[in-house]
Amino acid sequence: MPHEGFTHVDSAGRARMVDITEKSVTKRQAIARGRVLLSASTAAAVAAGEVAKGDVLAVARVAGIQAAKRCWELVPLCHPLLLGAVSVDLEVLDESIEIEARVETVGRTGVEMEALTACSVAALTVYDMCKAKDRSMVISDVCLWEKTGGRSGKYRRENLH
Amino acid sequence: MPHEGFTHVDSAGRARMVDITEKSVTKRQAIARGRVLLSASTAAAVAAGEVAKGDVLAVARVAGIQAAKRCWELVPLCHPLLLGAVSVDLEVLDESIEIEARVETVGRTGVEMEALTACSVAALTVYDMCKAKDRSMVISDVCLWEKTGGRSGKYRRENLH
Amino acid sequence: MPHEGFTHVDSAGRARMVDITEKSVTKRQAIARGRVLLSASTAAAVAAGEVAKGDVLAVARVAGIQAAKRCWELVPLCHPLLLGAVSVDLEVLDESIEIEARVETVGRTGVEMEALTACSVAALTVYDMCKAKDRSMVISDVCLWEKTGGRSGKYRRENLH
Amino acid sequence: MPHEGFTHVDSAGRARMVDITEKSVTKRQAIARGRVLLSASTAAAVAAGEVAKGDVLAVARVAGIQAAKRCWELVPLCHPLLLGAVSVDLEVLDESIEIEARVETVGRTGVEMEALTACSVAALTVYDMCKAKDRSMVISDVCLWEKTGGRSGKYRRENLH
Amino acid sequence: MPHEGFTHVDSAGRARMVDITEKSVTKRQAIARGRVLLSASTAAAVAAGEVAKGDVLAVARVAGIQAAKRCWELVPLCHPLLLGAVSVDLEVLDESIEIEARVETVGRTGVEMEALTACSVAALTVYDMCKAKDRSMVISDVCLWEKTGGRSGKYRRENLH
Amino acid sequence: MPHEGFTHVDSAGRARMVDITEKSVTKRQAIARGRVLLSASTAAAVAAGEVAKGDVLAVARVAGIQAAKRCWELVPLCHPLLLGAVSVDLEVLDESIEIEARVETVGRTGVEMEALTACSVAALTVYDMCKAKDRSMVISDVCLWEKTGGRSGKYRRENLH
Repeated sequence: MPHEGFTHVDSAGRARMVDITEKSVTKRQAIARGRVLLSASTAAAVAAGEVAKGDVLAVARVAGIQAAKRCWELVPLCHPLLLGAVSVDLEVLDESIEIEARVETVGRTGVEMEALTACSVAALTVYDMCKAKDRSMVISDVCLWEKTGGRSGKYRRENLH
Repeated sequence: MPHEGFTHVDSAGRARMVDITEKSVTKRQAIARGRVLLSASTAAAVAAGEVAKGDVLAVARVAGIQAAKRCWELVPLCHPLLLGAVSVDLEVLDESIEIEARVETVGRTGVEMEALTACSVAALTVYDMCKAKDRSMVISDVCLWEKTGGRSGKYRRENLH
Repeated sequence: MPHEGFTHVDSAGRARMVDITEKSVTKRQAIARGRVLLSASTAAAVAAGEVAKGDVLAVARVAGIQAAKRCWELVPLCHPLLLGAVSVDLEVLDESIEIEARVETVGRTGVEMEALTACSVAALTVYDMCKAKDRSMVISDVCLWEKTGGRSGKYRRENLH
Repeated sequence: MPHEGFTHVDSAGRARMVDITEKSVTKRQAIARGRVLLSASTAAAVAAGEVAKGDVLAVARVAGIQAAKRCWELVPLCHPLLLGAVSVDLEVLDESIEIEARVETVGRTGVEMEALTACSVAALTVYDMCKAKDRSMVISDVCLWEKTGGRSGKYRRENLH
Repeated sequence: MPHEGFTHVDSAGRARMVDITEKSVTKRQAIARGRVLLSASTAAAVAAGEVAKGDVLAVARVAGIQAAKRCWELVPLCHPLLLGAVSVDLEVLDESIEIEARVETVGRTGVEMEALTACSVAALTVYDMCKAKDRSMVISDVCLWEKTGGRSGKYRRENLH
Repeated sequence: MPHEGFTHVDSAGRARMVDITEKSVTKRQAIARGRVLLSASTAAAVAAGEVAKGDVLAVARVAGIQAAKRCWELVPLCHPLLLGAVSVDLEVLDESIEIEARVETVGRTGVEMEALTACSVAALTVYDMCKAKDRSMVISDVCLWEKTGGRSGKYRRENLH
């Protein structure tokens, strides 16, 4: 008989997509933030719209939104989800670009990975568009700031460190 | 006549994928690094293989490699490239997981975005697999460490800050 | 403090995926149509199954169906949806190939973009398969013909112009 | 009038994604199995972790899980589904690697294609990782073993042939 | 013996990706154009940046560029290509938005499908962002305007009809 | 110093995409075959074009071709490749559907995985389209039959077992 005993294998260490079929369908939200640290002159060029590849913030915003929708393709054990709302905002400061992503869904599992993915890909896009000017940029402080909905209740981060 | 004058529009601010068709085909390499800051107990659980979703490092490694190949899908103005080699290494320290991605190609443009994307997605995967234990993890210090090949010559980062 | 004030930014001009989480789950349908204008001899070759790349209509039908499912990947601010039915029909006339796509779902938002995407990609596929014979084909008149379900009620187009 | 008569075309032979919008949302599960037949020495190398490309079983498991989620992209007339759980197990025998995939969802259609796709892609990944040692491997016996939920009731396969 | 005779089947009517391996690697360019016909008030809203979903032209531009890169995924018999440059320009007229896509590559086959796909997806994106205001928009006149490079020589369209 | 020592880690067991940048660009071909075992009545229905979902062979052929192009997305350690030709043929026998895929490229690595993936996905598509009639179908004997080009020389399989 083929595959005998598979049912009882000890699953320690074996990757699997955990079962969410028993979880209830509720509204869930997440907010993630991150930043790209860059030189003052590069930040100024972004703010002034002087980057040769085009409008950095507009492209990064679109890239972040699209990445949120594709999170389950990128992160192997993430569940596919029907995102109901995604926004990505970017703000240029003196030596950084601050990124915030908000994601909402009505579903069986939370959207924190989607929000974190949106931040990360928006940050990568900023890097890509500015790299001809500055190769020393650093993507940092990508983390969850707020999460609501679902059994685990509300999570709210108070400060970065 | 339709579209008259399009040829001469001022392209300021308009996103475009820049022309690399005149660049020469050479061997190009990039190394990027990043880290996930996490609690000592979560780091210990990863090192001991005690995370419920499975072997964190093995899954993150695969996710990072695959993401490098899909960089051009995620980052809107990146050029598609035929990656010739990708490796992603992860190391568990006391309160962080360190990630290094190396990418090589023979092509018309560099692979730094691919290496940075591999690091970011490996980091997101670590977060995903550990988030049931620790929601306060932070992805930081994702940056380019070395780049060779191509017209702009060698880039090597000396330190993080 | 990072990201201060993000909550209150004026969102004018900033792309976002609009919130549908409060919309109700209902059955929704859409029908879109389009056409490829082509020479009489190319139309005849398609009808006779004499195109070197293969059966044009069969391949275009499959391409249109698959594109409907991937609409949310292509159109940046579209919501992912679980399509419940898709059909794409093509009819060869004397100097055109007429395309009609029908899409149905049970969900929180309509499927008109999915139907329009199916038509467009079916048309592109027709072009691709016939282009060795005729480079002057034109894809035209891609538009919504009917839409039912959802808060905005029924939409039915009476004529093309 | 454009597209006249399309409503009544005889649909014989025309591919379409069949309508599931009237089906009820229920919990559905499927188990599929398959195997890779390979030489005893290659099987031993896999078991011993001596394959140059890396840990064969860990990578194949991840590839299978990810493929289950992308089934609707690969199989043209499959419906998109929100998978709720996926696991892929592999077992090394003397001259084969046995693969079992389990998929669960709460939805309008079953997950047998997702389970079969997971098995097939896990098997292809085993082949890829071992092909430098052995090009004569064969992927066989990929089939459905169990299916529950939905109108058609329970299906259980008793033996392979 | 399995599959006997497959070598000699008459391939009439069977879809296949035609062989380009013997074609030479040369620089190839294509320009495609299309338009979205829309009401004067919707055109004015786009020009004034007053569409609720965000900056229509910026998002459509990014969507078109990304779609050019994914053409081979959408159009079943297209060859994958390494695009070397892509730009998508949009111009708002009184009752239309005009779209022009330019694509360049160094490769074994032309890029007209990529340019046409960029136009089509940019047009679909315009539709998506404006559909809350106007459901009667029509995507028309998507066609090739110029093609250079490759064995078939230069193609230049003189007028639309 | 961050990431110290990464250069010298023992890579045993760690998945990586092996380096092909030093391999030469040559023409490479592969032929893979597989079969779907099914009941005589289902085989007859396929041959007669009486399957409700549509023309099984036409859809499976397209699915196989498309899957060949996406092999590198599915199989984690596969290299992206520019496929130059793909064909998938299917033949209906009394109790099986025989599948043969041929893939060609000019590149740095072989196309056997692409040919095997095309066979597997064509087989899954046959299963999907026929499953309403027959759930006991089995996908078997998916293997490489011929491989030419590249350093390892010609491989030709003589028989299945």
